[in-house]
Amino acid sequence: MVKRYNCTSVQVKSFMPSAFILSQGDEVVTGQTVDTNAAWLGDRLTQLGIDVLGHVSVRDVEQEISDAMVEATQRADFVICTGGLGPTDDDMTAHAAAQAFECPLALDEVALEHIRNLYARHGRVMPEVNQKQAWLPMGARRIDNDWGTAPGFALDVNDCLLVCVAGVPREMKVLWTERVLALLDERFHLRPGRLVTLRTTGIGESNLQERIGRFDHPEAVISYRTMSPENQIKLRFVPSASDELVRELSLELAETIGSPVFSIEGLDGELGGSLIEVIGRTLADKGQTLATAESCTGGRVAAECTSVAGSSAWFLEGAVTYSNAAKSRQLGVDPTLIASNGAVSTEVAYAMARGIREASGATYGIATTGIAGPGGGSADKPVGTVHIALATPSDDVHRQLRLGGDRRRIQNLASAAALDLLRRHLTL
Amino acid sequence: MVKRYNCTSVQVKSFMPSAFILSQGDEVVTGQTVDTNAAWLGDRLTQLGIDVLGHVSVRDVEQEISDAMVEATQRADFVICTGGLGPTDDDMTAHAAAQAFECPLALDEVALEHIRNLYARHGRVMPEVNQKQAWLPMGARRIDNDWGTAPGFALDVNDCLLVCVAGVPREMKVLWTERVLALLDERFHLRPGRLVTLRTTGIGESNLQERIGRFDHPEAVISYRTMSPENQIKLRFVPSASDELVRELSLELAETIGSPVFSIEGLDGELGGSLIEVIGRTLADKGQTLATAESCTGGRVAAECTSVAGSSAWFLEGAVTYSNAAKSRQLGVDPTLIASNGAVSTEVAYAMARGIREASGATYGIATTGIAGPGGGSADKPVGTVHIALATPSDDVHRQLRLGGDRRRIQNLASAAALDLLRRHLTL
Repeated sequence: MVKRYNCTSVQVKSFMPSAFILSQGDEVVTGQTVDTNAAWLGDRLTQLGIDVLGHVSVRDVEQEISDAMVEATQRADFVICTGGLGPTDDDMTAHAAAQAFECPLALDEVALEHIRNLYARHGRVMPEVNQKQAWLPMGARRIDNDWGTAPGFALDVNDCLLVCVAGVPREMKVLWTERVLALLDERFHLRPGRLVTLRTTGIGESNLQERIGRFDHPEAVISYRTMSPENQIKLRFVPSASDELVRELSLELAETIGSPVFSIEGLDGELGGSLIEVIGRTLADKGQTLATAESCTGGRVAAECTSVAGSSAWFLEGAVTYSNAAKSRQLGVDPTLIASNGAVSTEVAYAMARGIREASGATYGIATTGIAGPGGGSADKPVGTVHIALATPSDDVHRQLRLGGDRRRIQNLASAAALDLLRRHLTL
Repeated sequence: MVKRYNCTSVQVKSFMPSAFILSQGDEVVTGQTVDTNAAWLGDRLTQLGIDVLGHVSVRDVEQEISDAMVEATQRADFVICTGGLGPTDDDMTAHAAAQAFECPLALDEVALEHIRNLYARHGRVMPEVNQKQAWLPMGARRIDNDWGTAPGFALDVNDCLLVCVAGVPREMKVLWTERVLALLDERFHLRPGRLVTLRTTGIGESNLQERIGRFDHPEAVISYRTMSPENQIKLRFVPSASDELVRELSLELAETIGSPVFSIEGLDGELGGSLIEVIGRTLADKGQTLATAESCTGGRVAAECTSVAGSSAWFLEGAVTYSNAAKSRQLGVDPTLIASNGAVSTEVAYAMARGIREASGATYGIATTGIAGPGGGSADKPVGTVHIALATPSDDVHRQLRLGGDRRRIQNLASAAALDLLRRHLTL
């Protein structure tokens, strides 16, 4: 269904509709804003089994937006255009569509009432300038926006469905879910196959591929997605795949990968979630608590823990003991231990983890000490040397890491590794 | 100089060359990777006074890349294309260019030698597959890449300069600086005007605009850039503006804005830098130190401090006292103070800041306590209520914030506000 486009060099499955993503705005093309909408939409469309041909961003110039619309609608079965629906002069999506497809703008009374009501709800009168937003291309279907002033619209042109919605990411995402999906389904009768995501950490993509080996199944394909330090495996099934198959194959794959899998999403009975959500949930369920003692990660482990709503139920406290004096005073680390082994050592990591566990009364204490760089390294202990330790009621665990990259990367990877040490202990 | 493109509705300054940014890759269009290159290049091109018309991403399909190249080179004076120069089958930029502009590929012996040497330097033999990277379109100028295996190339087509370079952001950026800039200068004789950036925090964009008022100057324009909680004002001068004018106008504008300005970039004698860099530099210069006590920000302030290389010179330690017990034990906050005022209060914020300052022996102690939500709010103290305090050798300062948004936003804004409280004290 890829149209007017010479694609002889690729296999295009005939059941996949194609899509093009359009965005506009001087702030996007001049790099003042990174266009995250395009990636978000690209991911969602791909998940629906729609073939994304590309995306294009143009300036706030009516003719250029209009040209881009014509080209995109000639190429794809579906075009989604975000932004340019606001009340100001540089918002010209509706005008551009009117020009591109020769459908003059007309005042949509329902849209106008909708905008007026939105203002009234906040006790304000609609400014005159906002009336512009209620002028939609004739023949377009209005897309009501309950989350902002900009109504969107859908047009059938060039044998293509063109949907224009607000570009503010928060609004765009809810409009996608609440409005656009239904339009897509109506048009393309989507029957997307099930998607199961295995989330892993502590293993690189190539090791992961090696562990999985050649994956060849008539009813499923896998793909990898790296978001260091997390690696995801996406298992996409054909629409006809049975629930049993989805379940069996997903769990079998998770077992093949083993302990790096920290959560499974898209499978009944599995809660999914990020590494810290899994840790928080497990601790809360068990009525256990955590305290952290950080040197080289400088507060990142604590910040990650407290990023989760409700973390006060299981996160007691953290110590960021950057100086040796603080390690001794806050955590009770013996100064002679630091003097004889150095602050970056197995011994000090253990002493820090045990120290914060005892001082706080938490079930678990985790600690990090290392050299994040760029300075401070030596032949013995180069930049990237990190010790992490976990103190538990039964036994203590230590791991030494040799990390590459810049300061930020080393701090982030060390942070994730420390949390993963706890996760693996909790789910043993 | 915008070509074959109907632009009657905009003013295009005749001295501004136009550019189009091209990227390719299935991982980009399906949203597995956010294309940060486009924004980076858009920003750099705009700074050079080049008019960015737009950017487009296409799939790894030779015909589609080739079509996109033809279109972009017909529209703009300069096209930069990133990615698709690797050794694998889905790298097809050179082939696409060859097809688009009818210039068959030819083996470039210098490029081949270059790749061989790169492998040799690491004690390895070049795999056969990499030979592909040395085949460049006939008539193209080779762009040597000392930072990776993929040589780039420049082609003059359709009265446009087409430059293709590696897409790995780290490589792309150094190639831009070390290679592409010279090609651009040779072609367009760029004389970009000076750019001065005023970086502010603690003030919203609309307040900032109000404070500045109408800015109207024959030799400079201003633009705003929001990266919450930071707001930047970019002051772009015409190439003929004198150094004196640049200096005077920039400092005058900084004075008009006042204390929200924390650094100025692009002006001789000004060091610039992020908020935490300015704080770290000032503390190190004065031989002063800092310790942090965090409740609602949960380690973010400490993490921000320790993100800067060399922070151990001025950052002593942090306490993440999420529980009341930790506030008392680590910071010496009187439990009756918490009982009578609540943990989220002026009194407790002060006691935390003073407590960490005394315990650590640091020159300054900063503290945060608040309700990050989504739970925990009350009519009296709704979600977003945050107290920040600073303890200094001379006096103590407190500020109460009422922040909106989700948990992450509240934590980030509170963190930045706490650091800004210190910055304003240091630069009084």
